[in-house]
Amino acid sequence: MASTSSSLAISQALLGRAISQNGSDKCVSIPAFSGLKSTSPRTTFSSRRIASTNSHSLRPLVRAAAVETKTESSLVEKSVNTIRFLAIDAVEKAKSGHPGLPMGCAPMSHILFDEVMRYNPKNPYWFNRDRFVLSAGHGCMLQYALLHLAGYDSVREEDLKSFRQWRSKTPGHPENFETPGVEVTTGPLGQGIANAVGLALAEKHLAARFNKPDNEIVDHYTYSILGDGCQMEGITNEVCSLAGHWGLGKLIAFYDDNHISIDGDTEIALTESVDKRFEALGWHVIWVKNGNNGYDDIRAAIKEAKAVTDKPSLIKITTTIGYGSPNKANSYSAHGAALGEKEVEATRQNLGWPYEPFQVPEDVKSHWSRHTPKGAALEADWNAKFAAYEKKYAEEARELKSIMSGELPAGWEKALPTYTPDSPGDATRNLSQQCLNALAKVVPGFLGGSADLASSNMTLLKAFGDFQKATPEERNLRFGVREHGMGAICNGIAHHSPGLIPYCATFFVFTDYMRAAMRIAALSEGGVIYVMTHDSIGLGEDGPTHQPVEHLSSFRAMPNILMFRPADGNETAGTSIESVEKGGYTISDNSTGNKPDVILIGTGSELEIAAQAAEELRKEGKTVRVVSFVCWELFDEQSDAYKESVLPSDVSARVSIEAGSTFGWEKIVGGKGKSIGIDSFGASAPAGKLYKEFGFTIEAVVAAAKSLI
Amino acid sequence: MASTSSSLAISQALLGRAISQNGSDKCVSIPAFSGLKSTSPRTTFSSRRIASTNSHSLRPLVRAAAVETKTESSLVEKSVNTIRFLAIDAVEKAKSGHPGLPMGCAPMSHILFDEVMRYNPKNPYWFNRDRFVLSAGHGCMLQYALLHLAGYDSVREEDLKSFRQWRSKTPGHPENFETPGVEVTTGPLGQGIANAVGLALAEKHLAARFNKPDNEIVDHYTYSILGDGCQMEGITNEVCSLAGHWGLGKLIAFYDDNHISIDGDTEIALTESVDKRFEALGWHVIWVKNGNNGYDDIRAAIKEAKAVTDKPSLIKITTTIGYGSPNKANSYSAHGAALGEKEVEATRQNLGWPYEPFQVPEDVKSHWSRHTPKGAALEADWNAKFAAYEKKYAEEARELKSIMSGELPAGWEKALPTYTPDSPGDATRNLSQQCLNALAKVVPGFLGGSADLASSNMTLLKAFGDFQKATPEERNLRFGVREHGMGAICNGIAHHSPGLIPYCATFFVFTDYMRAAMRIAALSEGGVIYVMTHDSIGLGEDGPTHQPVEHLSSFRAMPNILMFRPADGNETAGTSIESVEKGGYTISDNSTGNKPDVILIGTGSELEIAAQAAEELRKEGKTVRVVSFVCWELFDEQSDAYKESVLPSDVSARVSIEAGSTFGWEKIVGGKGKSIGIDSFGASAPAGKLYKEFGFTIEAVVAAAKSLI
Repeated sequence: MASTSSSLAISQALLGRAISQNGSDKCVSIPAFSGLKSTSPRTTFSSRRIASTNSHSLRPLVRAAAVETKTESSLVEKSVNTIRFLAIDAVEKAKSGHPGLPMGCAPMSHILFDEVMRYNPKNPYWFNRDRFVLSAGHGCMLQYALLHLAGYDSVREEDLKSFRQWRSKTPGHPENFETPGVEVTTGPLGQGIANAVGLALAEKHLAARFNKPDNEIVDHYTYSILGDGCQMEGITNEVCSLAGHWGLGKLIAFYDDNHISIDGDTEIALTESVDKRFEALGWHVIWVKNGNNGYDDIRAAIKEAKAVTDKPSLIKITTTIGYGSPNKANSYSAHGAALGEKEVEATRQNLGWPYEPFQVPEDVKSHWSRHTPKGAALEADWNAKFAAYEKKYAEEARELKSIMSGELPAGWEKALPTYTPDSPGDATRNLSQQCLNALAKVVPGFLGGSADLASSNMTLLKAFGDFQKATPEERNLRFGVREHGMGAICNGIAHHSPGLIPYCATFFVFTDYMRAAMRIAALSEGGVIYVMTHDSIGLGEDGPTHQPVEHLSSFRAMPNILMFRPADGNETAGTSIESVEKGGYTISDNSTGNKPDVILIGTGSELEIAAQAAEELRKEGKTVRVVSFVCWELFDEQSDAYKESVLPSDVSARVSIEAGSTFGWEKIVGGKGKSIGIDSFGASAPAGKLYKEFGFTIEAVVAAAKSLI
Repeated sequence: MASTSSSLAISQALLGRAISQNGSDKCVSIPAFSGLKSTSPRTTFSSRRIASTNSHSLRPLVRAAAVETKTESSLVEKSVNTIRFLAIDAVEKAKSGHPGLPMGCAPMSHILFDEVMRYNPKNPYWFNRDRFVLSAGHGCMLQYALLHLAGYDSVREEDLKSFRQWRSKTPGHPENFETPGVEVTTGPLGQGIANAVGLALAEKHLAARFNKPDNEIVDHYTYSILGDGCQMEGITNEVCSLAGHWGLGKLIAFYDDNHISIDGDTEIALTESVDKRFEALGWHVIWVKNGNNGYDDIRAAIKEAKAVTDKPSLIKITTTIGYGSPNKANSYSAHGAALGEKEVEATRQNLGWPYEPFQVPEDVKSHWSRHTPKGAALEADWNAKFAAYEKKYAEEARELKSIMSGELPAGWEKALPTYTPDSPGDATRNLSQQCLNALAKVVPGFLGGSADLASSNMTLLKAFGDFQKATPEERNLRFGVREHGMGAICNGIAHHSPGLIPYCATFFVFTDYMRAAMRIAALSEGGVIYVMTHDSIGLGEDGPTHQPVEHLSSFRAMPNILMFRPADGNETAGTSIESVEKGGYTISDNSTGNKPDVILIGTGSELEIAAQAAEELRKEGKTVRVVSFVCWELFDEQSDAYKESVLPSDVSARVSIEAGSTFGWEKIVGGKGKSIGIDSFGASAPAGKLYKEFGFTIEAVVAAAKSLI
């Protein structure tokens, strides 16, 4: 019993993903994994609106030429300086932000956005766009400047002027849920490059599944800029090891090698050979020595990177942080603060920049203006290609459409297994596996895996093989022992397409390793599913290093995550939809008039102990209600009347039992109730012994109840 | 105001570290950072007992020869098989555990413990011992078998027979607080090698500070065994990059290259070149191709590793997991489960092992028995060396003794700055810096640093330079952007010597990156201090990726951590010792008879808002108490009478204000109180604006209070 629990958390956007269809405001929600019926989107969080692939099919006025003609070099320089000064001016106006990175990375990013990347600024969600991730997210003014120049409606001049202000579209780090054109939410270092690996994985997977010899309908690159900070974070090594292993040839990362981090020169803490490390990880490595002016070198490097199709490429570009600032360039003082009025002026002088703050010179504006018709043409061409695809490959097109739109096939939830009270008992992780496999059959974008615990987490999809370099069409992801990378890669997959629904798994205690990624999933409405098995001291002999205690509380405290702790097959599969979707509900009661002598509240494996204790108490003539408290967040959202029907305010005799910290339970049991939990670390011993020693017994529940009646 | 908060957490052992002096049971506690007076050790957790360096000065009967004579190879083989079968038998008896690693790693570890390492089995805490860390902690039966053979009293035959049982000395993963001879607590992968880097750092630092040309009083190696799982974890790359950067030449890591992880062959998820990666990280790499039988190769590799003094060494040893098992060797099935009766028998046959379960052959026993006198001799020699050192270098000896024993200099707390109500206001992180610098002056083992945020966290020790390869005597640690590695390295430093008190720092939100290491600090009683600045939405423009919300709750839920959220100079410095050490206390009150109309409770920056709201309410004739709730864990431990004096049960009108999740506050404000907090993510805007928009205002507190009166 005790060793069979597993928990699920779902970052809340899975319930709340809003999909704008054909330009209308109608919202469709994707029901959550556990089989909940469609729920209206959360109003307290920004919703992700996806323009459908058909909503921008106006014939473009101008067709982009297949081969870009080379831009005059003085105009390139001017455009690069425009990017620099937009960043300088916005940070200066906000008196807050990071000018140094945009000033150093303007050349590489100009080439990327103006010459290389394929996107449609008027439909940031065009499916086949190239993806760009600024992993060094603090340099977000770089990205805002680029989106502005490229013609995205999300970043207009007034948005640049309200950089880092309340409710602006230009927050202090890139946030996909605020700014269309931003693919993922970055800032915490290393997360972005991990997301980029997820995006590139998604492309490789979908291309392998859907491309045909005569119609390569999925075909885009993923680009990322990362800095020294990202390089130091362990997550970066985890995901880049996987990217090399998987051979993600269409992932091209720019390493902004500027030798400066917040505490000073990187020589104080980073003297490894990053190049050699990436070669060891199976990457193709190119070094551009003059990232400040070597435009042709940058162009050549990108060309070379594209030519290597079986390995991801790292283009190390040596740049100067704060390039152009006479007194702050090449210093940490350019990193994270406004240059200051005097230095801004000196930089204007130094770079020969006569324009007003926020001014985009007319020739630069005119040069970039072609991206609007070009983007429309790219999308229109692709739409035509998709129409041909649909005609010839109807079945595949149906699946791909579902992935692109996020609309699940009608009746998908009927595929879930059902259980009755007579169903044989089983570990919840086995029941979870039945559900995962059932979902994979009907949900085309359902894929995932475990951090080297597939056989313990029970997360293998039996109908599919492993996603590997040579078999990218498969859906079992093998992350190795890389929890943090796993979580962040799943964020990238989730944000690639609304219909890609990744799940990932580990022992509950090891969510500590990927908590930073889970938080960003919640914040960015990733809709990632976490299967977290071995969720208490019930895992037994492995001992306290492997036994979660505070984890349920710590996720209940995290915003925008639904933390489920299911107790049995019905809750795991969600066939008792009406009850589970309320978060807490009565499973048995021998009282009348909503006034039991005592209410026993349990979750997971301990619900059974509560139920057995109730039987004992009832034998002694007490009226007892047993309540399953599977998801606190959902219970919180119910009407007062419903809450009162489950936990009547008149009944203060309440006992909770849960093999986790009691922290937070006062809210449920009240000041006069009792919580049976564990507020110390666990121990190494068989599960049954631990349950007894730590007081998770029928007797303990009965005694606590009696003390309150 | 709003942007100035910082928080502190102290893994509880700092308060509870018990030091057994000269064999007596007298316990001395090290007061906590915040200036708390000595507190009796927690009774609910195991205490770390350190035998003093003088308590085992009996003249040894036998003196170890300086050069070890080579043992007959058949006896080596027999000893190696003894290790294998002790592991096999213990796992079999427990029907739980990991036999595969001990069977594969027995050869390298035999050589290490029998031929190479310097230790005293009868005093596991002898200061100058070589340290050994089993980073692949699941293979703990390897370590228990070695400790048993070597003569440690902590692991006797009956302890092996109670492997993984309730209250045994042989838990399912190595736990330093359960088993003397185990240096650190491992199991969660990657933590151990990070601890080993911390141990090696400590040695290099102390050697640089205390060694004299004529007396190298600090001089030991740090060894570690890590497996494929550790290699995949990002933390391993973080800390090994630092170890290379710092040139930790006396760190020698064995990489058990067995090609198997839980999910099968490592080729499914680990195909990078680990060797080349470590070379890129600045390590000396050696490959022993036959780790199963190549004893001389292993010996030669260790010799080579020791000869390289300016780089850490990685000895990659190719082994067979489950070596000797005819049907399970080289398979994941040998990894994490008992072999089974039949396979155990087959393995006995295969390796020609006629002995009973748990039997150590007499010649093996006799061979290992020399380590008791040898160890005593090593320690006695060193004690003599220390006596000479003390005579010649009295001042240095005094400092080193304090570091070895954990006894702080008398009156150290007087060095802390004091503040009065008239002291000018300042950001708590600035006040924190004053305290850190004051402590560094008087506490010889106080050292630490930040994850590339020293200038933001305000953690630089001004009297010292940077600990670097060429300046290891300094005390400012530069971790780079490697939070997880930082946390785990600090655990290693803390467990090197009782008097080494490491602190580490980052933005509060980025504790998510190092939460796994912090949990182990708490579990293993590391006494690490965490300085966590920018602890709420008050950090402003950086936005929700950088704004902690749920973090206070999530650490309050974690066992064995003291989570402090100080409000001002007095609390930061701890001059109001009597109050702060109670965790919660009244800062102002205009009521009589312990019956105010309302109680306002605040922490950190919000305490000031509560105080100002109280002024408003008092103007209107209300009686109002303001309570500072700086540390919940300490308040929990107070007497009922004290608690009642602060939060009288008759007063249900209570309002809390804290810029964090309200999760858990019901416990303090009760069912009829109100909590002002933030249960969504934050936003990017200036701090003042955010405080207003999210309702952290005097008006909001006044309104909440009035609604309850």
